[in-house]
Amino acid sequence: MEAAAARPVIRVAAICGSLRKASYNGGLLRAAAEVCEDSIPGLRVDHVDISGLPLLNTDLETADGGFPPAVEAFRDKVRQADCFLFGSPEYNYSIATPLKNALDWASRGQNCWADKPAAIVSAGGGFGGGRSQYHLRQVGVFLDLHFINKPELAVKAFEQPPKFDSDGNLIDAQIRERIKQVLLSLQAFTLRLQKKD
Amino acid sequence: MEAAAARPVIRVAAICGSLRKASYNGGLLRAAAEVCEDSIPGLRVDHVDISGLPLLNTDLETADGGFPPAVEAFRDKVRQADCFLFGSPEYNYSIATPLKNALDWASRGQNCWADKPAAIVSAGGGFGGGRSQYHLRQVGVFLDLHFINKPELAVKAFEQPPKFDSDGNLIDAQIRERIKQVLLSLQAFTLRLQKKD
Amino acid sequence: MEAAAARPVIRVAAICGSLRKASYNGGLLRAAAEVCEDSIPGLRVDHVDISGLPLLNTDLETADGGFPPAVEAFRDKVRQADCFLFGSPEYNYSIATPLKNALDWASRGQNCWADKPAAIVSAGGGFGGGRSQYHLRQVGVFLDLHFINKPELAVKAFEQPPKFDSDGNLIDAQIRERIKQVLLSLQAFTLRLQKKD
Amino acid sequence: MEAAAARPVIRVAAICGSLRKASYNGGLLRAAAEVCEDSIPGLRVDHVDISGLPLLNTDLETADGGFPPAVEAFRDKVRQADCFLFGSPEYNYSIATPLKNALDWASRGQNCWADKPAAIVSAGGGFGGGRSQYHLRQVGVFLDLHFINKPELAVKAFEQPPKFDSDGNLIDAQIRERIKQVLLSLQAFTLRLQKKD
Repeated sequence: MEAAAARPVIRVAAICGSLRKASYNGGLLRAAAEVCEDSIPGLRVDHVDISGLPLLNTDLETADGGFPPAVEAFRDKVRQADCFLFGSPEYNYSIATPLKNALDWASRGQNCWADKPAAIVSAGGGFGGGRSQYHLRQVGVFLDLHFINKPELAVKAFEQPPKFDSDGNLIDAQIRERIKQVLLSLQAFTLRLQKKD
Repeated sequence: MEAAAARPVIRVAAICGSLRKASYNGGLLRAAAEVCEDSIPGLRVDHVDISGLPLLNTDLETADGGFPPAVEAFRDKVRQADCFLFGSPEYNYSIATPLKNALDWASRGQNCWADKPAAIVSAGGGFGGGRSQYHLRQVGVFLDLHFINKPELAVKAFEQPPKFDSDGNLIDAQIRERIKQVLLSLQAFTLRLQKKD
Repeated sequence: MEAAAARPVIRVAAICGSLRKASYNGGLLRAAAEVCEDSIPGLRVDHVDISGLPLLNTDLETADGGFPPAVEAFRDKVRQADCFLFGSPEYNYSIATPLKNALDWASRGQNCWADKPAAIVSAGGGFGGGRSQYHLRQVGVFLDLHFINKPELAVKAFEQPPKFDSDGNLIDAQIRERIKQVLLSLQAFTLRLQKKD
Repeated sequence: MEAAAARPVIRVAAICGSLRKASYNGGLLRAAAEVCEDSIPGLRVDHVDISGLPLLNTDLETADGGFPPAVEAFRDKVRQADCFLFGSPEYNYSIATPLKNALDWASRGQNCWADKPAAIVSAGGGFGGGRSQYHLRQVGVFLDLHFINKPELAVKAFEQPPKFDSDGNLIDAQIRERIKQVLLSLQAFTLRLQKKD
């Protein structure tokens, strides 16, 4: 018990790739925060808002490598996180623009993502957002993110019975349980990678 | 000569994925416009600006499927083009955010890209932007773009001798010739796909 | 009727990426041949067997660029086809080995695939073989294949009701109809690309 | 010193995707073995031959889940390794057939690759085999391999000065040093992932 008390809580930055209010991917991340609080000691999910970031333009950086205030604030949050949970909608068979925008801004200059674990959840038609996940994993090679391999979660949002209510809240218990398994895998992988001699 | 006169000029919409003023990818597209005007009858390259588009958020669409004015104007230009030439910088091993933003906006509702030919040029470090090209091709499956296969052009921008001046203008004659080959292939493929019974 | 008589039948080479006798992907291709014969005038599907090809090793090529007999015979069939229909199972999130083997052998020396249209069908768990399709499309860029964009067909083979019998024969009428739509799209795209001045 | 003595040597299974005798990718792996022996204590590279594996056909598996002898022997070597170094040539913009064949065979039934670290080196024209690396990384998601992110090594084999002799032996000191950096990164990542409570 003492060892558990001494170990600091792992902070997961949850980043939703859709800016839409009733986004299903946002719903997955809200469910992840609830699951964590209810049943995963030692793990905390904090939502990081990316809606205020300007569209990437490196001309917006100052001569001494500074960033617009909204970008600086976002980069701070990325740096403070121990690991990441991406809600990654698929737009046109790839990563949603707002998510790519956030990934790019925090990679400029000193890469804020480096050497941290990450996991992906997605929801959508067809493959449930799955195609976006493999593009995101390729981006992670350059960002130096360490993605968990299993379990993967790509929710086919339009199959019966309904998975989300009209506000985008997850209402499916099985998917909630699968989110928990993703979080437990992310927690274990983060602890494993944090081990020092 | 009469046949040539009767055939309408093919309009290529050139879209640069970087908003940076001195972008090398912008330089490739300017060179493409010059090459066309100088030496490719029947083909015209028009630059389409995407810097004014808002960051994608489907909540910005009106209830009857309308778009913000800048988006409507961009969609009109996509619809009017016969084919596309993308200047596709690679950011973090994938498509640049501003380009993905433009692709997404013109795909909403009635997809404006459908059934049109396209080609890609890119410039950058490493593989010269090459990784972005294959992600863009996957996006094109859903957008129903018909990409030419050959030649491909991914310019290693930082190898000696210099390929661009400090304003991003192409100064390399060999690459200019390779751009011409890309354009001729795009022209031929467009004519081939436009053939009707 | 005269016009139809004058236009030669389009020959589709159907290539199954699995060597397994009861392969679902083989079942999709058998269904395609039946659909063609029953209801698509002007299109003929011929199965091309790839089970006898040796595992790719360029040391097996002769000094003057010759190939082992089984490879030569396969290359002849690829050259004689007007277009291709791939039955592309997904093995470990990519293209099945036997299919990649066949693609590689017919690309050596004089590329036999060049400038021909193609379509993909697949069946499997998860995304129904979908991940293999995008890798296959990337291979097609170098092989100079022109894939149809729509419709795509990735059959989730293990969902209820059963889609195949124990011999791998397709028993689902809706999927049979979707195969027909793929074939009609391939036929139309082939005719469009064959048009000459 | 005692701690170092107590720690068992990490065994790297080196797997070359080309069966060609004078393969450059084989040359990279031979260089890796030499570099290890010369200058990386605690790491040992063992070449694992895949040329005797039959072309994947799951009908070759016995009813009780057994494999052909050559496959069983290969699977044993994969299981005994602590981590992997792939020499991954690019064939037609994707993974070489013999490598995919080996990956598939050792994934059947009880997946032999699971939860082990891996690194990739490649050599070739164009992007130096780079396109094959990203397809291999996607395969690794399902195989549950943990790839190092950095450094990446894709050798442009045909640029001057020559990188390999006519037997495929690496003759470039800078690339040899970069191989060393890949191996050190693989060693560090393996140790980090092996840490237990």
